[in-house]
Amino acid sequence: MKKTKHLSAKHQNPGEAGVLRRIDEVAARMQTRGSGVRLGIGDDAALFKSTNGFDQILTCDWFLEGTHFLRDKHPADAVGWKCLARAVSDVAAMGGLPRCFLLSLALPASHAGLWLDEFLQGLHRAAKRFGCVLAGGDTTRRRDILINVTVVGEVRTGEAVLRSGARPGDVLFVSGRLGEAELGLRLIRKSKRLASSRDPIFKKHLYPEPRLALGRWLAEKRLASAMMDLSDGLSTDLPRLCAASSVGARLKASKIPAVGVPKGRRSGDTAALDLALHGGDDYELLFTVPRKKLKRIPRSQNGTPITAIGEITKERTLLLVDKAGRESPLPDLGWDPFRKPDKRQELTLRV
Amino acid sequence: MKKTKHLSAKHQNPGEAGVLRRIDEVAARMQTRGSGVRLGIGDDAALFKSTNGFDQILTCDWFLEGTHFLRDKHPADAVGWKCLARAVSDVAAMGGLPRCFLLSLALPASHAGLWLDEFLQGLHRAAKRFGCVLAGGDTTRRRDILINVTVVGEVRTGEAVLRSGARPGDVLFVSGRLGEAELGLRLIRKSKRLASSRDPIFKKHLYPEPRLALGRWLAEKRLASAMMDLSDGLSTDLPRLCAASSVGARLKASKIPAVGVPKGRRSGDTAALDLALHGGDDYELLFTVPRKKLKRIPRSQNGTPITAIGEITKERTLLLVDKAGRESPLPDLGWDPFRKPDKRQELTLRV
Repeated sequence: MKKTKHLSAKHQNPGEAGVLRRIDEVAARMQTRGSGVRLGIGDDAALFKSTNGFDQILTCDWFLEGTHFLRDKHPADAVGWKCLARAVSDVAAMGGLPRCFLLSLALPASHAGLWLDEFLQGLHRAAKRFGCVLAGGDTTRRRDILINVTVVGEVRTGEAVLRSGARPGDVLFVSGRLGEAELGLRLIRKSKRLASSRDPIFKKHLYPEPRLALGRWLAEKRLASAMMDLSDGLSTDLPRLCAASSVGARLKASKIPAVGVPKGRRSGDTAALDLALHGGDDYELLFTVPRKKLKRIPRSQNGTPITAIGEITKERTLLLVDKAGRESPLPDLGWDPFRKPDKRQELTLRV
Repeated sequence: MKKTKHLSAKHQNPGEAGVLRRIDEVAARMQTRGSGVRLGIGDDAALFKSTNGFDQILTCDWFLEGTHFLRDKHPADAVGWKCLARAVSDVAAMGGLPRCFLLSLALPASHAGLWLDEFLQGLHRAAKRFGCVLAGGDTTRRRDILINVTVVGEVRTGEAVLRSGARPGDVLFVSGRLGEAELGLRLIRKSKRLASSRDPIFKKHLYPEPRLALGRWLAEKRLASAMMDLSDGLSTDLPRLCAASSVGARLKASKIPAVGVPKGRRSGDTAALDLALHGGDDYELLFTVPRKKLKRIPRSQNGTPITAIGEITKERTLLLVDKAGRESPLPDLGWDPFRKPDKRQELTLRV
């Protein structure tokens, strides 16, 4: 990230130096000791010292106004939290831990004050929570708020859990409950106000928790044969895991841990199973376990339920099995930003 | 980068899978052996194995339509080249070499065909030229074309050249000629057509060359006490180097290697010195050398001129000295995206 201090005073607010100074102040409050970051914000680039015996995990994620959040509905603090949580979730899905991150931020000048401060508060809380530090980035001015986050994580060499390791007979698991984030999003879209950060029904949508401890544990104990995080919805992400592993899957509808929709919040488009199958943004882990290791998988970890929802099959089809045992093809209605507007329009934000 | 292959065929063009497949095809043509990339596109994240005894250099850069390039004036191939060149230049400025990069791309569906192919061709040529491979990224659909590139480079531990090492008495150098990119940009802005990739006057603006060999050599030989790349213009970037080093500088106007403006292209706003002082996007190296090492700096390296343009001073002021020896404060008219529209409006692209 470019240097924040100038010799002349003319670059004070609302100039780039002002934006960078605020970001720099937040970075300075992060504990870099042990993070591997040798040189942070203020030079042409950051310097990172990797850990002997570890591979580095590299991932980046868009978080764009109008596509991934709405300026007038999503609190700035939640935008700050979630832009980092999304990218950290990819590190969790490899079985690693995050070390540091780069923040690319484009803002209108009108948002370089209070909005930026609240955004940075959320980002800072998330960084502390996930154990990674802000090492650098890039800022510019723009009509829309655009965010891109790159996270560098680490995993002991040989321990990374890929999408490609699922084998026929493996049991398919998910962490947490599915569809909660989607329910929160739908309620926020219907509302005319900024969503309350304190309403528990919005928590999963606004402040997702990457499953770092679970991912790490599964990798370390070599229990998962394949793993990914659920960002685009089970019906979109499961086909990706299956394709990478050259397998298919049978999902048991009744086993899927779906969001509990409170009575007062029910409406035509909030069928729990649909939310759980097609809703995005849950950032839960989807993973497969060989049968001989099944006994070692607990029902929950630190309060997060772990649920067997189906099995991996040799036939490369995706089937949903209902309570009566009837099989039907799993409809793929998950998130694809390039797909033409269709039913999905109702399910997620679009430009 | 998310998986490119789906079990079902419904995700073909113009879906995200189609975009990812094109990107994946380009990535597959890149030679990953020796790059450190252990796992590329297709999983939740990429895996990179760092080199023993080296630090990792982390940098990211925005490249946004309307801010950094114009869809109807800049060839897609040049957009692909330059988005990578900009970020690689930061690695050169640390004295390192690039290893791999992540591409975040947001596109309208209308640009997911031919435009994307040409963009990827330029990106591929740049990646080959700079010796780094595409390891992953993120794609989404968007009205505007948005690009963010993260580069991971490496430098032997202890060899990185920072901005903060300049000392009073050190001599200030630049590589290449300054203002060429700015001149190209101005001519492109005046034209109504797509710029020709073959016109040499546009070359520096469309296809900048990060000074990797020079940066690496200066770091390895420990000749530079401080270094940065010139992205926002000498008058904006020199203050940053000076601030980081707690020093000032005296620039000799007559020594600055300014762009040669061809006769037929001259107009009121193309004074060569102004272009050289305030024009951005040159991606030349600005570095300082202690006097006792001056003899080891050649006049050029592989055809790139290396020019002494001034000296570092204890007084924390920035002075421009004209031919007659008169000193004046260096006006800072370089690129600051958050500054209110002013004279700079004429100098670079703005939203």
